[in-house]
Amino acid sequence: MAKSKYEYVKSFELADHLLPHTWIVVRIDGRSFHRFSKDHQFKRPNDEQALRLMNECAKAVMEDISDIVFAYGVSDEYSFVFRKTSSLYERRSSKLMSILASLFASTYVMKWSQFFPDKKLQYAPCFDGRAVCYPTEAILLDYLAWRQVDCHINNQYNTCLWMLVEAGKSSEDAQKILKGTQADYKNELLYTQFGINYSTLPEIFRKGSSLFRRKEEEIVKFKDGLPIKRIRSKVVVEHCDIISQQFWEEHAYIIS
Amino acid sequence: MAKSKYEYVKSFELADHLLPHTWIVVRIDGRSFHRFSKDHQFKRPNDEQALRLMNECAKAVMEDISDIVFAYGVSDEYSFVFRKTSSLYERRSSKLMSILASLFASTYVMKWSQFFPDKKLQYAPCFDGRAVCYPTEAILLDYLAWRQVDCHINNQYNTCLWMLVEAGKSSEDAQKILKGTQADYKNELLYTQFGINYSTLPEIFRKGSSLFRRKEEEIVKFKDGLPIKRIRSKVVVEHCDIISQQFWEEHAYIIS
Amino acid sequence: MAKSKYEYVKSFELADHLLPHTWIVVRIDGRSFHRFSKDHQFKRPNDEQALRLMNECAKAVMEDISDIVFAYGVSDEYSFVFRKTSSLYERRSSKLMSILASLFASTYVMKWSQFFPDKKLQYAPCFDGRAVCYPTEAILLDYLAWRQVDCHINNQYNTCLWMLVEAGKSSEDAQKILKGTQADYKNELLYTQFGINYSTLPEIFRKGSSLFRRKEEEIVKFKDGLPIKRIRSKVVVEHCDIISQQFWEEHAYIIS
Amino acid sequence: MAKSKYEYVKSFELADHLLPHTWIVVRIDGRSFHRFSKDHQFKRPNDEQALRLMNECAKAVMEDISDIVFAYGVSDEYSFVFRKTSSLYERRSSKLMSILASLFASTYVMKWSQFFPDKKLQYAPCFDGRAVCYPTEAILLDYLAWRQVDCHINNQYNTCLWMLVEAGKSSEDAQKILKGTQADYKNELLYTQFGINYSTLPEIFRKGSSLFRRKEEEIVKFKDGLPIKRIRSKVVVEHCDIISQQFWEEHAYIIS
Repeated sequence: MAKSKYEYVKSFELADHLLPHTWIVVRIDGRSFHRFSKDHQFKRPNDEQALRLMNECAKAVMEDISDIVFAYGVSDEYSFVFRKTSSLYERRSSKLMSILASLFASTYVMKWSQFFPDKKLQYAPCFDGRAVCYPTEAILLDYLAWRQVDCHINNQYNTCLWMLVEAGKSSEDAQKILKGTQADYKNELLYTQFGINYSTLPEIFRKGSSLFRRKEEEIVKFKDGLPIKRIRSKVVVEHCDIISQQFWEEHAYIIS
Repeated sequence: MAKSKYEYVKSFELADHLLPHTWIVVRIDGRSFHRFSKDHQFKRPNDEQALRLMNECAKAVMEDISDIVFAYGVSDEYSFVFRKTSSLYERRSSKLMSILASLFASTYVMKWSQFFPDKKLQYAPCFDGRAVCYPTEAILLDYLAWRQVDCHINNQYNTCLWMLVEAGKSSEDAQKILKGTQADYKNELLYTQFGINYSTLPEIFRKGSSLFRRKEEEIVKFKDGLPIKRIRSKVVVEHCDIISQQFWEEHAYIIS
Repeated sequence: MAKSKYEYVKSFELADHLLPHTWIVVRIDGRSFHRFSKDHQFKRPNDEQALRLMNECAKAVMEDISDIVFAYGVSDEYSFVFRKTSSLYERRSSKLMSILASLFASTYVMKWSQFFPDKKLQYAPCFDGRAVCYPTEAILLDYLAWRQVDCHINNQYNTCLWMLVEAGKSSEDAQKILKGTQADYKNELLYTQFGINYSTLPEIFRKGSSLFRRKEEEIVKFKDGLPIKRIRSKVVVEHCDIISQQFWEEHAYIIS
Repeated sequence: MAKSKYEYVKSFELADHLLPHTWIVVRIDGRSFHRFSKDHQFKRPNDEQALRLMNECAKAVMEDISDIVFAYGVSDEYSFVFRKTSSLYERRSSKLMSILASLFASTYVMKWSQFFPDKKLQYAPCFDGRAVCYPTEAILLDYLAWRQVDCHINNQYNTCLWMLVEAGKSSEDAQKILKGTQADYKNELLYTQFGINYSTLPEIFRKGSSLFRRKEEEIVKFKDGLPIKRIRSKVVVEHCDIISQQFWEEHAYIIS
């Protein structure tokens, strides 16, 4: 039973290293989460607890993998940005994407009861992953802007849809009313029919969630009654505008 | 806020379809499971409950994804074989490997307490994944043989190592004793020093676990007191020799 | 001027090895050969000398690269089949396809005057290349059949088209007449209008060209007036049916 | 003989698009040019006519393919830089590299007699190709610097080697003398033993050849005895330092 006789099968494993010196983005996406949301009675159009659970998982991923410098989440998807010069797992695409999809999903189960203490998790959630390289900062920021624009468009649409449904329309009728309408029309509809000022809705719904590290001064112990402080880098969650340049100018250290 | 302005970033997502008409094997592997095993006091050299948990996760994956026709597990790794003509997710490598790694990990957390009712899962487990294509049945079987040979070699080595350690040797001394020795020597050592006949150790340790579907007749209901039977395809777990041709001849339907 | 300072740029060269144990087909295709054919007054619908030049180039490629076991040419394209176990250039896709496209094109210029002694080659011809893997013999033969079917369909169409044009139709009118017609109709048209029995046209036009090696006994020298013979493997050019199994049964050594 | 029956084989052609918005460099390299140089009695350590033929071929390639903005050649290799936003052949790696390797080789044959009117080209030359993406201008310039440093190091070494050989040393002895020596030592050796000031050797040998476009005013015709001028973009060949920033500052338009 010679080991070597079969070892040749390893040669079928082809290399999949990602281009060096580019921004690797791994995006994970809930598999069949439309059904998952229904099966777990997530609130419509947004379930804040479900979103906070997603954020908590993303935070755990970032705390585990220090090469991730930024993450952005909306709905059942999350994008993780690796620093440009990362050589984690030799930049092997399969390793990076599978580990993130795997760690995110198992953390989701681990933390479920913290966010849904009264709801049983009925089956194992699953996320797919993909890895994409962006060659410049400008294009990376366009990628993130793309996701935040998507967040905005989907949230505005879904908010209108569910208000109409709650007001008694069938789902089909509500969709017909909204079909092809512009942002202004939807804002107007929310305001005049339902008294909702869209811009005052919670930012977590309208802006999605951005995770990044912030240096914070922290008391680590007391010595002779005096606090000993240390600068610590902490992953924070914010719901801010990442489309405008302002955020990136104020947090230039994130992608520099 | 034009959506189209940022949509161009999608063009950076490159295709990763796997060669058609080949056997796709997705192998997942526990990330840092050496530490994970220690942190959860897994028995050495083998923890049967930990292996049965792995098998249960693999079974859940196979029941979810019908294009998987065979799975083989050993230690903290599992190989899933897709049928040659599968077009699941258009054979996109990233989808297949990330979904399997993700589903396996989340199921592992879900089912932990069934196998370790008295042990707390301390942190989220994680599995990496990779996808490899094998062009012919013969090479696919060589791949599976490769994994089973590995199972055998590692198990024999680890069994010797831990018997020596339990007998009072340091881990370093035990390693020195075993270094470069042949299979015969190790079997002899187990027998003469510890009274262990290697070939009588549990098959799950020596052979790993093979999962495949078997058609079984099942009583689905009773009508007028008579059983109504139906043929059902069930995923079964066996610990058999998959290196010899015999298994594949007797189960030709699996990869035909 | 340290060499090492810049050497890191080599890390951007990503691996492109083709799956082992599959049939590599490199297909080259004339770039802008529609214009090239016009500029060099190639005969329509087929220029036998141009085809023979293509064949001569393919033969030179096969004689240079012994891992190529079969080649099939039609019009301005040629497919080269590498033996399944070839490890030429470590099966690097870029090497294989670029070398074949390059060698074919330079040979085309070298041999031009042999086939067109009275015609000046006006500019450098160019061929693009691509490499594709086929996992089984059956699929490889389907690939070759695909190319020969294409040869037949195009040749039948072009023969009709040019007969109509020669008979005074405009190119547009001729195309209209042929649009959507079946093989039978075209054969009938050739026979009734132009007295041409399609099946008697030269095989090089109807079947394309197949190149492979054949062992032949050869007199290498004379000793004491007696011939000393040796078995030599020679690349031969034939215009045979490679769609039916018969050819492959009679020449089983080619792909076995 | 249904066409569709075989068309499925096209699905085995996998995509190979290069990452958008990166600098594509296609480098071609003479296949077995060590032997080719000997067989055609190229002068050692440099054959100026052979280098000028290479440059002429590169120029023809650049004039044919307008998306190439810069080319750098040394010895039997040439690097072609495509503009960052090129979408030629949809950035398909196989198309770009095979076409350049093919066009270069056929042009080499076409132009041979212009540079070697008294020498017969004995067999078809061949170049391999590869395509690499560089994400930023800075890295692209490091790539070009890498090639020019190579040019310098090889030329200095070869110049020493051939002077020693001409002076009567065996090739092996000459190699021993040079092994492990620094640039200073080699310059000193050339000066003291052979009276050669390395920095006065022809720049084409020491710096390689750089090709790029330059806008030039050109008289296109005369009208009423007065010259009518037009700005034309012409490919020029220079032997300049492309490692220092100065060249790129003075020719900022090339890669901007």
